[in-house]
Amino acid sequence: MNAPLRIAIAGLGTVGAGTLAALAQNRELLARRCGRTLDVVAVSARKRTKDRGTPLGLAQWFDDPVAMARDAAADVVVELIGGSDGVAKAVIEAAIARGRHVVTANKALLAIHGAELALKAETAGVALQYEAAIAGGIPIVKALREGLAGNRVERISGILNGTCNYILTDMREHGREFAAALADAQRLGYAEADPATDVDGIDAAHKLALLASLAFGARVDFGGVYQEGIRRVTRLDIEFADALGYRIKLVGSARLTEHGLEQRVHPCMVTRDNPLAHVEGVVNAVVAEGDFAGTTEYEGRGAGAGPTASAVVADLVDIALGRRSFTFGVPASELKAQPRAPIERHRGAYYLRLMVADRPGVIADVAAALRDQDVSMESMLQRGRSAQSTVPVVITTHVTEEAAMSKALAAIARLDSMGEPPRTIRIEPV
Amino acid sequence: MNAPLRIAIAGLGTVGAGTLAALAQNRELLARRCGRTLDVVAVSARKRTKDRGTPLGLAQWFDDPVAMARDAAADVVVELIGGSDGVAKAVIEAAIARGRHVVTANKALLAIHGAELALKAETAGVALQYEAAIAGGIPIVKALREGLAGNRVERISGILNGTCNYILTDMREHGREFAAALADAQRLGYAEADPATDVDGIDAAHKLALLASLAFGARVDFGGVYQEGIRRVTRLDIEFADALGYRIKLVGSARLTEHGLEQRVHPCMVTRDNPLAHVEGVVNAVVAEGDFAGTTEYEGRGAGAGPTASAVVADLVDIALGRRSFTFGVPASELKAQPRAPIERHRGAYYLRLMVADRPGVIADVAAALRDQDVSMESMLQRGRSAQSTVPVVITTHVTEEAAMSKALAAIARLDSMGEPPRTIRIEPV
Repeated sequence: MNAPLRIAIAGLGTVGAGTLAALAQNRELLARRCGRTLDVVAVSARKRTKDRGTPLGLAQWFDDPVAMARDAAADVVVELIGGSDGVAKAVIEAAIARGRHVVTANKALLAIHGAELALKAETAGVALQYEAAIAGGIPIVKALREGLAGNRVERISGILNGTCNYILTDMREHGREFAAALADAQRLGYAEADPATDVDGIDAAHKLALLASLAFGARVDFGGVYQEGIRRVTRLDIEFADALGYRIKLVGSARLTEHGLEQRVHPCMVTRDNPLAHVEGVVNAVVAEGDFAGTTEYEGRGAGAGPTASAVVADLVDIALGRRSFTFGVPASELKAQPRAPIERHRGAYYLRLMVADRPGVIADVAAALRDQDVSMESMLQRGRSAQSTVPVVITTHVTEEAAMSKALAAIARLDSMGEPPRTIRIEPV
Repeated sequence: MNAPLRIAIAGLGTVGAGTLAALAQNRELLARRCGRTLDVVAVSARKRTKDRGTPLGLAQWFDDPVAMARDAAADVVVELIGGSDGVAKAVIEAAIARGRHVVTANKALLAIHGAELALKAETAGVALQYEAAIAGGIPIVKALREGLAGNRVERISGILNGTCNYILTDMREHGREFAAALADAQRLGYAEADPATDVDGIDAAHKLALLASLAFGARVDFGGVYQEGIRRVTRLDIEFADALGYRIKLVGSARLTEHGLEQRVHPCMVTRDNPLAHVEGVVNAVVAEGDFAGTTEYEGRGAGAGPTASAVVADLVDIALGRRSFTFGVPASELKAQPRAPIERHRGAYYLRLMVADRPGVIADVAAALRDQDVSMESMLQRGRSAQSTVPVVITTHVTEEAAMSKALAAIARLDSMGEPPRTIRIEPV
């Protein structure tokens, strides 16, 4: 049996408490797997006296997590404070500066400072691991960084935010509008009081930026992620999606195109054949396409104490066994700053929903606007008739360029038969 | 850039040629990921002159793979010859004896000799890696051994044989009987001329034995796997399954029970909620249940040159980077020989199909036979009527013990209203 791995944990909220519980509950099992014990020697959190379910034992208490990262006699510092800057960053930097390994669940921080921190860690010869930052209990970082290392990844896509997936599932299953489903998610603890980070796609974008870096050896570029959330998805869109054979999902996807790295997070129409179509509720899923492995898919719970703790402990086991990897799969010094593929260059099919006055000639005007931009219609669906109010008309297009679609949309919006601005949702290929 | 990783490959069939192609096609990418090149320095196969799509370059040719494992100036020997004994085993033993790492895709060999070879490799201080032995392109060995290392695994189950899944999918989608679907699979190259290893569940059992060892820290015990293939699944069973809300899949599953390690491979009825229900065609899938991660699922192509090569190269990347693991997740010397949970102690629900004379009282006799063994009926379904011939009757039971079900079945088989032996398929929980 080798010397224990000495662990300092900064932040004892849900994930921190779950990590303590996993390390305590599976202590003997982990010692067998690692050939050494995993000992929590120091902790830091806001309140010392809170009951966290697992006794802190002999762990040294620090009021200041940065002081802990600097001074505790630890081999590895686990950062579970959160936040894209400030104390979390200071904790990680202090740990690296003292030659301690780092494990973090902090997607926001890594999405912004990941390339820089990876370089610092690799220069200092320490690990910077973050399995818990993406898709909770699914070991997707390990799968991309190691399991698919023999492949050139062609595309990575996924359902990366459980809150949004819960809301969209709830809207479809119970015929609810967004606001009602959000309220429900908040009541159940699946959404925060301020839901913006989740429902506006920011959280998914953080995770996508990290996945794209891993998959393509690119410098993490959160600023390059096109983001659109789910606030504007309506019950009506979900009903039309169903009628057309689609499901609406908030999908993050990234690939290298001739225009550069394309990173997109937005609501998507996916066919029922798409592996992401059947991922429901708070579940996360990631699909990777490799040139040799083909399509592989990974599913599991993306959040919560247990799944996130599972990921944190997996990183600690790697460190305990001396299994070392480059933070983003290749040396941080070799990560390439990829040009950003503009969303205008995106090519795909589109779902277009219009609320129009129900009178002859409207469809002809819309069709002409699409034709003028060389956008080819695939299907048209009008449900319901009303002389008094507007009625919904849905059009799906063949593959076209986003720029052409935008111009056609602008022309359509100017038609005086339009009751409200046209709404589009991108249709994602399988 | 460190010294190249020198690779010797024994066996240049489909997987060997795929591995050569992956190493050649992604050579620069692999060098970036490993900080060194991955060089094939020696090869051995039956025919020297065959066109394998990728030039053998400067690799030294060996007629004798064992001599190659012993004498080639290689850091790692890749065994892709196959077979549960004989030359494949000799190659691996020779490599280990010379202190060379080993990568193999040989599930049959490891299912039988895995514990012994793992001990030899660990004693010699070399790696024995086998990602390609299970579920092709899905990095499931890595997921269980490393990604879920923080968990006590509670159950592992999966669709581990693409041939069987293709046949069952084909039977359902095209209303074919087993023989026709098998012939189709053979024509398409998804099944061997002698299909026994696949359709009798042997191949799936090999893989399950390895997964169970990894998941539970148990000595690989292929002999302890209960095996039943798909030859007796009929089109009628598949139709009834559909009517009852189930899909029939060949599932391998393992868990630790109070009676010991339960390892089963047999056709299962799974509800449409089960993540395995939607896995179609040649795709493989594995579901792991961990005490912290919860349920995670992994899907991808389980066979073929590309997916298998992807797995072989992932193992080579681990070795190139010095990422070392215990072969089965804990030191080989600590693997526990678990008692075998007898199939008679299995508890579950059952689907029971009878072909009976269509006359009053038959169902009463069957119900009495079940009652006598305390087996509780959940549903009964009779379709079609015929005074001349037998008609099918389907019964599903509540959870019971296999031993009780067997006794009830024996009594039912003795009823003179039975047209053919009763047929059961176990119903698997989600």
